[in-house]
Amino acid sequence: MQYVETKTILFSKPSDELTLKSGVKLGSISVVYETYGELNAQKSNAIMILHAFTGDAHAAFYHKGDDKPGWWDAMIGPGKAFDTNKYFVICSNVIGSCKGTTGPSSLNPQTGKPYGLGFPVITIQDMVTVQKKLLEHLGIAKLLSVAGGSMGGMQAVAWAVMYPEMLNSAIVIAACHRHTAQQIAFHEVGRQAVMADSDWMAGDYYGKAVPKRGLAVARMLGHITYMSWMSMEQKFGRKLVGKGELGYNFSKDFEVEGYLAHRGQSFVDRFDANSYLYLTKAMDYFDLTEGTRKLTEVFKNVKSDFLVISFTSDWLYPSPQSKEMVRALKANDVEVSYVELKSDYGHDAFLVEFDDQTRAITHYLAKVQRERASQ
Amino acid sequence: MQYVETKTILFSKPSDELTLKSGVKLGSISVVYETYGELNAQKSNAIMILHAFTGDAHAAFYHKGDDKPGWWDAMIGPGKAFDTNKYFVICSNVIGSCKGTTGPSSLNPQTGKPYGLGFPVITIQDMVTVQKKLLEHLGIAKLLSVAGGSMGGMQAVAWAVMYPEMLNSAIVIAACHRHTAQQIAFHEVGRQAVMADSDWMAGDYYGKAVPKRGLAVARMLGHITYMSWMSMEQKFGRKLVGKGELGYNFSKDFEVEGYLAHRGQSFVDRFDANSYLYLTKAMDYFDLTEGTRKLTEVFKNVKSDFLVISFTSDWLYPSPQSKEMVRALKANDVEVSYVELKSDYGHDAFLVEFDDQTRAITHYLAKVQRERASQ
Repeated sequence: MQYVETKTILFSKPSDELTLKSGVKLGSISVVYETYGELNAQKSNAIMILHAFTGDAHAAFYHKGDDKPGWWDAMIGPGKAFDTNKYFVICSNVIGSCKGTTGPSSLNPQTGKPYGLGFPVITIQDMVTVQKKLLEHLGIAKLLSVAGGSMGGMQAVAWAVMYPEMLNSAIVIAACHRHTAQQIAFHEVGRQAVMADSDWMAGDYYGKAVPKRGLAVARMLGHITYMSWMSMEQKFGRKLVGKGELGYNFSKDFEVEGYLAHRGQSFVDRFDANSYLYLTKAMDYFDLTEGTRKLTEVFKNVKSDFLVISFTSDWLYPSPQSKEMVRALKANDVEVSYVELKSDYGHDAFLVEFDDQTRAITHYLAKVQRERASQ
Repeated sequence: MQYVETKTILFSKPSDELTLKSGVKLGSISVVYETYGELNAQKSNAIMILHAFTGDAHAAFYHKGDDKPGWWDAMIGPGKAFDTNKYFVICSNVIGSCKGTTGPSSLNPQTGKPYGLGFPVITIQDMVTVQKKLLEHLGIAKLLSVAGGSMGGMQAVAWAVMYPEMLNSAIVIAACHRHTAQQIAFHEVGRQAVMADSDWMAGDYYGKAVPKRGLAVARMLGHITYMSWMSMEQKFGRKLVGKGELGYNFSKDFEVEGYLAHRGQSFVDRFDANSYLYLTKAMDYFDLTEGTRKLTEVFKNVKSDFLVISFTSDWLYPSPQSKEMVRALKANDVEVSYVELKSDYGHDAFLVEFDDQTRAITHYLAKVQRERASQ
C-alpha cells in the first residue's frame, strides 16, 4: 500500500493575483495537490492529471487511515497506465471546488466569511491558469502530458490551446471542446433544483442548514446522465426493493430509485452546493470557439500530440464530439490518436473501464516518450 | 372553425365502483370527454384517442372563445389522419389527471376536501378500465381503433391485452409495454424535485401555496427528455439571451435555459403537482409482463391488428422498445405494421411530425376498414 499526503500551496503575493476570464481579479488563493512518483533530473517526466466535476486532488494511493485509495488509483501507480516508476504524476483540485482549493465555501479574506455567491464565476480556462501557477511553483517548464476525463478532458484540451509550448501531449477522455444545448440544459436543471431549495438562501447557507434536498435531486439527475440506458437496465432493470412487491404509494418501489436516493444523499455529505453551481457553470461556459471562431482556427497553435478517447455508450459526451475535435486537430496536422472504446457503462466508463484505457494510454505514453527522446 | 364542448359523465352508482389494479376500491368518479364526427348506425366507426402524460380530453377542434384548438387537432378532423368525415373520435381525460376526470386534486366525497395523497395510486390499466366504462356508457361494443402516443401508446397496448374483443386495431406511437430503469429514473428525479419543495407538504397544499419550484424543475427535466440532442442543438445551440454576452453570474445566459424556465413556469400554471406524481407513477408501474411473464405470452390473446410507430431520434421511448413489441406480436401471428419515422424532434415528434404520421395512419385505417368490411 502506497501512501500520499495532500499538500497545500498558498498563492498570496501581489504578483500571484489572478485575472479570471471574466476580467475579475482574484487575490490570495490556496491550491491543494498531490504527487506520485519522482520527478527526474531533467524534469521531463511530469504528467498532470485533471479531475472531473466532483473529483479532487486525491487521484491515487492511500491517505493514512483510509480504506479506499484515490479516485483513479486503478490508473496511477507502479506498472499502471500512468506508471509512477516512470512518471512524476501531479493532481490538483480545481479552483471553485470544495475539496481544498479556494472556492465559494472558502473564507473571503476581505470579509472573514465564506464567499458564497461573492466568489467570482470561474471557467475551465481559469482552472488551467491556476494549474500553470502550480507547475511554475514546482519548477516544471514542460509536461510530458496532461490527462483527464469529462471536465478533466475539457481542461486538457484547454491546456493544449492556452499553453501549447508547455505540453508534449494531451490525453482527452470522454470530453468536448464546447458544451452543447443539451449538456447545458441538464446542468441548468440541476442548478435550478439547488436554487429551488429554500435552504439555499442565495448561497448564504454556511453554518446553517445546507440545501440538501435540492442538491440531492441535482445529483440524482447527474447519475442518470453518467450511466447508459443499458447499464441501468443491466444493473437495476425493474428490480423491486424491500418485500419485492409494488407498494402502491410514493415510497420507493424500484432498486433504481433507491440507488439514486443513495447517491444523492452521499453527495450531499461530501460536496458543497455552491461548488455544484460554480463548476457546472464553468462547464456550460466552456466553448473554445468562443461562439465565433472555427475549431480548426482554435487549434492552429497546438504543439502537442493528442490521444482522444470516447466510449460507445457515453451519451452525455458522445463520440461525435470527440471526433469533431479529432478532425479539427488533424486539419492542423496535429498527430492525433483516437480510440473509441466499446463499453456499456456510459459516461462513467472513464472511471470504470480500466483495462482498455490502460492499454491505450500505456501504448500512447511510450510513443510520446520515444518521440521526445528522438527529437 | 369547428367547435366542441367537453362533456362530463359521473359514475356514481354502486355498480360503478372501480376495483383498481392495486385492489383498492374507488367509488364515485367523474370522467370528462369530447367526441368529434358522428357515430354511424352500426356503431362501427368509433376510434378512441388516448392522451399522453399532461394531455387532456380536448384533443381537437376549438372551445368557444379559445384561439388554440385541441392538442392533436392537426391529426383529428375532416380529411385528417383521424378523419371525422368517416370516424367517430372520442377522447377522455385519464383518471389521476387534473383536467376534469377525478384525480388527487378532486374533492374526496367522504371528507369534502381534495384527496391529495389520499387518492389511490392508479395504473395504466386503471385508465383503460375507466375508458371501457365510458365506451359502455356511449353504447359502443367495439372500437375500430385505439390510438395514442407516449403514455397514450401504453394505454393502447394495454387495451389490446385487456379487452381484445373490443378492438379492431391499436395504434401505438412512441411507447412501450414496460418502463425501463432509465425511464423510471427520470420520473423519480421529477417526483423527488416535487416532494423536495417545502410547499408540497405531503400533498396537502390545496388552497395554499403550490409546490411550484419543485414542479417547475421536474418539468424542465421532462422537456430535455422530450427533445433530442439534435433538436436542442438546432433550436438553441449556445445562443445567448439578452445582451448576447455571458453574464458571469447565476442568472440565465443561454436561450436553452430561458426556454426550460418558461416551460417549467407555464406547466406550474396548468398542472397539479400531485397529478404529476400519480401519472408518472402509473407509467413507472407499467409492465405488461408483470415482471415474470414473457411478452409473447402477454400478447397471446390479442385479437386486434397493430400499427406501431417510433421515431429515430426518440431516446426516451427508443425504437428498440417498439421493435420488441412488434416481434412479440408477430410471434403470435398478429398482423402488425411497423413504421420507424425519421425525425430530429425526439419524443416530441408524435406532437410535431404530422405529415408522416398522417400518411401512415390514413393508410392503415383504410386497410383496417377494408378488412373489417370483407369479414
